[in-house]
Amino acid sequence: MRKLSWDEINRPSPEDVQNFPKHPVRTVVHNVRSIHNVGSIIRSSDGARVEHVHLTGYTGTPEHNDLHKTALGAQDAVSWSHHEAPLPLLRSLRDEGYTIAALELTDHSSPTDQVSAELYPLCLVVGNEVHGVSDEIIDLADCAFALPQYGTKISLNVGVAYGIAIYDLIRQARTHFGPPGAQ
Amino acid sequence: MRKLSWDEINRPSPEDVQNFPKHPVRTVVHNVRSIHNVGSIIRSSDGARVEHVHLTGYTGTPEHNDLHKTALGAQDAVSWSHHEAPLPLLRSLRDEGYTIAALELTDHSSPTDQVSAELYPLCLVVGNEVHGVSDEIIDLADCAFALPQYGTKISLNVGVAYGIAIYDLIRQARTHFGPPGAQ
Repeated sequence: MRKLSWDEINRPSPEDVQNFPKHPVRTVVHNVRSIHNVGSIIRSSDGARVEHVHLTGYTGTPEHNDLHKTALGAQDAVSWSHHEAPLPLLRSLRDEGYTIAALELTDHSSPTDQVSAELYPLCLVVGNEVHGVSDEIIDLADCAFALPQYGTKISLNVGVAYGIAIYDLIRQARTHFGPPGAQ
Repeated sequence: MRKLSWDEINRPSPEDVQNFPKHPVRTVVHNVRSIHNVGSIIRSSDGARVEHVHLTGYTGTPEHNDLHKTALGAQDAVSWSHHEAPLPLLRSLRDEGYTIAALELTDHSSPTDQVSAELYPLCLVVGNEVHGVSDEIIDLADCAFALPQYGTKISLNVGVAYGIAIYDLIRQARTHFGPPGAQ
C-alpha cells in the first residue's frame, strides 16, 4: 500500500467543476459567526459537489481573507451567494421543489443516514455555533436532521456536523438517483 | 416541530461517560499542527464515544488553553494520552487485536461506509493537515480509508474528515455488534 502522488490524484479545475452536474442538494448557512467554520463548510461543499451555498445573515463570505485559510481555494469552485434574510430565500426554494431540512435537535429530528428519495432536491440549513438554527427557520422547515451524540456534549462543531450530514445526504442521493447527471 | 430545551437534552456528565462502555474504535492523531483541529477531533470523539484518543508526535494535548475553545469541555470526557512515537504504539495496538487503518488516499483505500465486522476493534489514524498520514505509518497500516472527493480538492479539513470517518465507523460497529456493552 502506498500514498497516491499528486499526479495520480489529478483533480479537475474550478472551471471544470462549475460545469459538472451537481448532487441535488444545496446549503443555507445562517448566522455562522466563525469565518473558519464558513471556510470549512465551503471546502466540504466542494468535496460533496453541492449545487449552491447560500450564506445568509451575518455569515461571512469568501471575500474575507481569513476564509482562504480554511477553504483553501474551494471558494472558486463552489457556487455561492449572500442573502441578508433567510426566510424569503427558503420560501422561494420550497416553491422550486426543495425540501427545507434544518440540521438541529428538535422533537422530530431524524438521522441523516436514512433519507428517502422523495426528500430530494433538498436544502440543508445550518445555524449559529451556540444557538443553532433559529426558531423562525425551524417553524418554516419541512423536517430536521440530527446526528447521534453518545458523549457529554449536545452537538459537534458546526463545520464537522455539516460535513457528516452533507456526505450522508449525497451518498443517499447517489444511491437513489446515481451520480449527478445520470438521469 | 420545535427545538429541544437544555433540560430535555439532558446529557450525562464526563464522569458518567468515562464509565460507559465505548464503541470498539480508537484514534491516533499524529503530527496535527492546529490545536483547533485537535480540539474538534476531541469533541467528535466525545460525540462518537470512542475508547481512547492517542495524541502522537507534535500533536497538541488538552493542556493547551486554546484547545478548550474547540473541544468545549469534551476533553474531560474523552480518555486520551500522549506518545512521542506512533510506530511502537501502533505495533502494540495491533498485538492487542486492533486493525490499524489510515485515513489517507492510497492505491488501496476503501470507503468508510462499508467496513466489515472482522476489522473491529479498529484504530483509525489521521495525520498532518498538509502531508497526511506519514509514509512510515502507511507502511505499517493494515488498510486505509478515504472519503470520495467530487470537487477540486484532494481532501477535506482533517477535523471534518475525521468526523465523517468516525461517525461512519461507529455506525457500522453498532450495526454489527449493537450498542457498546450489548455483548
